[in-house]
Amino acid sequence: MLVVMKAQATTEEIAAVCKHIEQLGFRPHPLPGAQRTAIGITGNQGEVDRGNIECLSGVAEVIRVSKPYKLASRDVKDENTVIQFPGTDAVIGGANLAVVAGPCSIESREQAFAIAEQVAASGAQFFRGGAFKPRTSPYAFQGMGLEALKIMADIRAAFGLRIITEAIDNESLEMVEAYADVIQIGARNMQNYSLLKRAGRARKPVLVKRGLSATLDELLMAAEYVLSEGNYQVILCERGVRTFADHTRNTLDLSIVPAVQRLSHLPILVDPSHGTGKRDKVLQLARAAVAVGADGIMVEVHHQPDIALSDGPQSIYPEQFSLMMDEIEQIAPIVHRRLPRGIQVTAAAL
Amino acid sequence: MLVVMKAQATTEEIAAVCKHIEQLGFRPHPLPGAQRTAIGITGNQGEVDRGNIECLSGVAEVIRVSKPYKLASRDVKDENTVIQFPGTDAVIGGANLAVVAGPCSIESREQAFAIAEQVAASGAQFFRGGAFKPRTSPYAFQGMGLEALKIMADIRAAFGLRIITEAIDNESLEMVEAYADVIQIGARNMQNYSLLKRAGRARKPVLVKRGLSATLDELLMAAEYVLSEGNYQVILCERGVRTFADHTRNTLDLSIVPAVQRLSHLPILVDPSHGTGKRDKVLQLARAAVAVGADGIMVEVHHQPDIALSDGPQSIYPEQFSLMMDEIEQIAPIVHRRLPRGIQVTAAAL
Amino acid sequence: MLVVMKAQATTEEIAAVCKHIEQLGFRPHPLPGAQRTAIGITGNQGEVDRGNIECLSGVAEVIRVSKPYKLASRDVKDENTVIQFPGTDAVIGGANLAVVAGPCSIESREQAFAIAEQVAASGAQFFRGGAFKPRTSPYAFQGMGLEALKIMADIRAAFGLRIITEAIDNESLEMVEAYADVIQIGARNMQNYSLLKRAGRARKPVLVKRGLSATLDELLMAAEYVLSEGNYQVILCERGVRTFADHTRNTLDLSIVPAVQRLSHLPILVDPSHGTGKRDKVLQLARAAVAVGADGIMVEVHHQPDIALSDGPQSIYPEQFSLMMDEIEQIAPIVHRRLPRGIQVTAAAL
Amino acid sequence: MLVVMKAQATTEEIAAVCKHIEQLGFRPHPLPGAQRTAIGITGNQGEVDRGNIECLSGVAEVIRVSKPYKLASRDVKDENTVIQFPGTDAVIGGANLAVVAGPCSIESREQAFAIAEQVAASGAQFFRGGAFKPRTSPYAFQGMGLEALKIMADIRAAFGLRIITEAIDNESLEMVEAYADVIQIGARNMQNYSLLKRAGRARKPVLVKRGLSATLDELLMAAEYVLSEGNYQVILCERGVRTFADHTRNTLDLSIVPAVQRLSHLPILVDPSHGTGKRDKVLQLARAAVAVGADGIMVEVHHQPDIALSDGPQSIYPEQFSLMMDEIEQIAPIVHRRLPRGIQVTAAAL
Repeated sequence: MLVVMKAQATTEEIAAVCKHIEQLGFRPHPLPGAQRTAIGITGNQGEVDRGNIECLSGVAEVIRVSKPYKLASRDVKDENTVIQFPGTDAVIGGANLAVVAGPCSIESREQAFAIAEQVAASGAQFFRGGAFKPRTSPYAFQGMGLEALKIMADIRAAFGLRIITEAIDNESLEMVEAYADVIQIGARNMQNYSLLKRAGRARKPVLVKRGLSATLDELLMAAEYVLSEGNYQVILCERGVRTFADHTRNTLDLSIVPAVQRLSHLPILVDPSHGTGKRDKVLQLARAAVAVGADGIMVEVHHQPDIALSDGPQSIYPEQFSLMMDEIEQIAPIVHRRLPRGIQVTAAAL
Repeated sequence: MLVVMKAQATTEEIAAVCKHIEQLGFRPHPLPGAQRTAIGITGNQGEVDRGNIECLSGVAEVIRVSKPYKLASRDVKDENTVIQFPGTDAVIGGANLAVVAGPCSIESREQAFAIAEQVAASGAQFFRGGAFKPRTSPYAFQGMGLEALKIMADIRAAFGLRIITEAIDNESLEMVEAYADVIQIGARNMQNYSLLKRAGRARKPVLVKRGLSATLDELLMAAEYVLSEGNYQVILCERGVRTFADHTRNTLDLSIVPAVQRLSHLPILVDPSHGTGKRDKVLQLARAAVAVGADGIMVEVHHQPDIALSDGPQSIYPEQFSLMMDEIEQIAPIVHRRLPRGIQVTAAAL
Repeated sequence: MLVVMKAQATTEEIAAVCKHIEQLGFRPHPLPGAQRTAIGITGNQGEVDRGNIECLSGVAEVIRVSKPYKLASRDVKDENTVIQFPGTDAVIGGANLAVVAGPCSIESREQAFAIAEQVAASGAQFFRGGAFKPRTSPYAFQGMGLEALKIMADIRAAFGLRIITEAIDNESLEMVEAYADVIQIGARNMQNYSLLKRAGRARKPVLVKRGLSATLDELLMAAEYVLSEGNYQVILCERGVRTFADHTRNTLDLSIVPAVQRLSHLPILVDPSHGTGKRDKVLQLARAAVAVGADGIMVEVHHQPDIALSDGPQSIYPEQFSLMMDEIEQIAPIVHRRLPRGIQVTAAAL
Repeated sequence: MLVVMKAQATTEEIAAVCKHIEQLGFRPHPLPGAQRTAIGITGNQGEVDRGNIECLSGVAEVIRVSKPYKLASRDVKDENTVIQFPGTDAVIGGANLAVVAGPCSIESREQAFAIAEQVAASGAQFFRGGAFKPRTSPYAFQGMGLEALKIMADIRAAFGLRIITEAIDNESLEMVEAYADVIQIGARNMQNYSLLKRAGRARKPVLVKRGLSATLDELLMAAEYVLSEGNYQVILCERGVRTFADHTRNTLDLSIVPAVQRLSHLPILVDPSHGTGKRDKVLQLARAAVAVGADGIMVEVHHQPDIALSDGPQSIYPEQFSLMMDEIEQIAPIVHRRLPRGIQVTAAAL
């Protein structure tokens, strides 16, 4: 923490700020400068409330130095986190690219199996499908719930694909934990701290999607909520943020991938489907996401997007998915990755 | 819904789009223009998924016309919603300005009563205080929970002030419903649809704060979630949105007040404390909020902000609050409002 | 400037950073902390390029402390700047509210005089009207140029109103300087530094509108460009910024008014016409702007907005302008201002 | 253009709107819907001011349909524009990737030649270097001007590299046109329409960088300003936009690349240096830009970034540039491109 004094601050004001810092139990370090004095603060293990100091006479501003997250930071753990999926060769993080594919929503057993078969055939290792849908409108399709979870468990049994699906409250999280392999926390719930804590007490990996206007720090703090409850299997996911730009549904912020990788050991996926909201841009951004160094891709695939109950316009066709796999497979070695094709199940899962 | 064809779209493509619209059960209305053809769609009671049509050959774009909210709309209910507080003369909405004041968090009985006494003395009718706090860091103070609710119930008994406090999950909502007069849904939970639905089943008014990057439509849709469950007592609150601007914690978007009032019958408050994040700007923006036509002000007050456990820097002092009341009282008649001073309790509440 | 070292930075790395700072001619002040070491830098009169230091081994980040503007700062000049208009009682800044009103574009002598007569009758002291229009489309009306300037000079002679109009390049600036009383630099040119420098060499006051995505610092730096050339008569103007919000054309950021007033001595106006883009929100935001403490209002008025050649939808009618004047006149004393009604011309201008 | 009537609009109001549209010289097409009536407008060659209609009684909103740009649109010219550089094999647009590299600013003949030699050795075809610098602060280095242009002309003669450099006003544009191969219009001047028009009268290709908060439409309209003056050699460049995200200097919006390519025939480059502002993210985003399908990369390279007079922290080292070339060369064929290595000069240039 650094306190910057006003140019015209008096010696008395500077002394008063130092005394205040000492009374808070910290050590002040006055730094007289050419134009103004700054005062460093050390000895603070936790959080000093900068506002309190900002109110003192003569203070221009207070600047925070230490990062608020700990367990998510490379300062604490330098080597990359790699999430294992017992009984299979699948991983998220590390040298392999993880590909998660499937429909926005599970609409029926037939629909789900038809898509699963095709994404499995193209070599995906993970299947996604919404069971509990957070929809902007209360009048829109809200998901098939438990029924969808059962269908996805059957898909895992049939194709080996590991299952990622969203939980939207404590009740659904309990069900998702029981049936799926990864519990997804959606963008709209990235700061639903009750849900994050509950996910932190689950024994399954948790995928945290970046909120629509979340900063890098806030994304890592959301992960910290899960980690701080003892669940160290956290995966991050960039899915576009909200900006003034109107040519895509969201603005996909690929630069967060190297930014996360610099600060944190957690793996990060990219979702070009929500990131663009437009089918005709998904493949391009999927390629870009692999090229930028993401740990994997999460993408919506639908064999009949025209009649999809949600997010049809951003779902790619299975043949486009197959092409995407071929393209990212070629890019992978350039970024020192490989794309596994298909999942090896070596033991009965769960 | 309007389908805009590309300039070079063929007659066959236009016919195919019309046929597709008919197959969806709607009526297409082709409109040949100088540069291109547009096709109007009528007969859709609900939502047509525009993406499906956007994928057809020759289509340039699809434009949505009808608004997705219904119960929140003036189309359905033209007169303003006024929330009554039985056994008192307090209202939110209508000719009276509602003022909600109190600390960010309830920190102790002494702190809460000290602040409540002062805001009551200045004429506030509503008391706010956090019992369950959604904090960015898992290591920060998370609120006193039930204990805080009991303190606030005692404050209501002692001073007559009606109580507004935030619920962050179903468990806390049940407690808030039991003890408080208004259930607050915080900005970070504005799209926590499970929580909104649960609030819609409560028998207390619900205050929905605008999300950090919520559009006007999304704010009204969040209200619609509550309304659609049968709870018609919904209050909106602007509290600043996230932008590139860095001189305030958030950018307070006062223009949403007349925008809401044009489209919806629901009352809307403004929170200049979160909206600016800086004590030295709260009074100015409170005045502006009343001048723009808001139905009231929600403001953080603390008698000792230097030692507040949360949001100290944006809390104003009781004497500043008193000044604020004097200022907005003078502005009120210019916008055809009046500021009641103090609450009349005519019957035992609850 | 403050250099924050990584948690695991070695003693050698810290020493190397200190040495680098000394080689740049500054003084390093190492501050060992509980988690990491920070190094303060003093002795820098001008700008230290923080990137150079950010690249050194062991450095986590570099934080800038001093503000980059000087002449615009209260550190240099504490009393408010008040712009005088010789030969009249009009001022911008100080206790009086300045009201600038007129059409977006001068379209004809009849149109300009009709509007000028009405805004003068309601008590405006300043007349605005576009002669050179920066239009998004090259095919849109670009303004009447010199002809418009002559019309406005005649309006000044007829009604006493002082003239504010935009210059878009060096050629138009020369003409505007010759004919008008205030040279406006539009939002799209706020970082057109050639134009700002040229305005700094003019002998007329300069009004600088905030850019569509300009931070507070950037706005003050634009003013600094004008000031640094020797022209100290600078007026700022908030006119809305670009955000994700879609219910108004721009998001009017009223909190910049107290923020500017804290840091700078320069007066700041608010333009609710561009700030909202919608006639039905202009009066509300004009009231809010006065209530927040702005030094004045700049507003578009048109007697026939339906046939205006530009920005018709955001222009208010003369009778609305008259109502606006009455409303802000009532708010003015609450913020210790007064609204002069009409301009007193005591000597032949120019 | 589509006029959407309010739900409760009367038959008389609908008729009045139709009549108004007819009076403007267009044809109204009323479309009665289940909830409300919409009215299509045809026959408008140019721009109908939607505000005029929005003011009529009973109108809910007016939606624009036709795009405002013409010459930049694929509607007018379907095949991609490829910019030739006479006397060389270099192109921008088409199957070849264009790589533009060099320092932010030309600081001296030695510096410029040292960097040029190295980027030429790695196979760049284009050299960039600032001669006229738009700096936020009037106290910062403003560029060497004409002297820098002469140095770059000598670099072209020595290494064959084609020269791209920014013009900031009419005076500098004239010099840039005389000495360079491509005239750059910087992001801060993207809506400096006087400068765009002047560039449109130049006989050299013009590179238009996207403004800090420019929409896709506004970027294409800026190009349209150049095109409409008769200069059809326009290159676009994405360089990051301003958002709330704080982990990079700007947010690089790669999705604009496929969006531009869908709507326009103009080539588009990506600048990962300004797009991230951080050296340690430039290579990753350069790879992503090629993978997304950009027509080329514009990147800052400096052999001694620690002592660069501007933008040192975002400049990559020559050896990083060499690595970047190797990486994008490998990605190129996956997106059906090739990276030429070095420029072939077949005739004396200029």
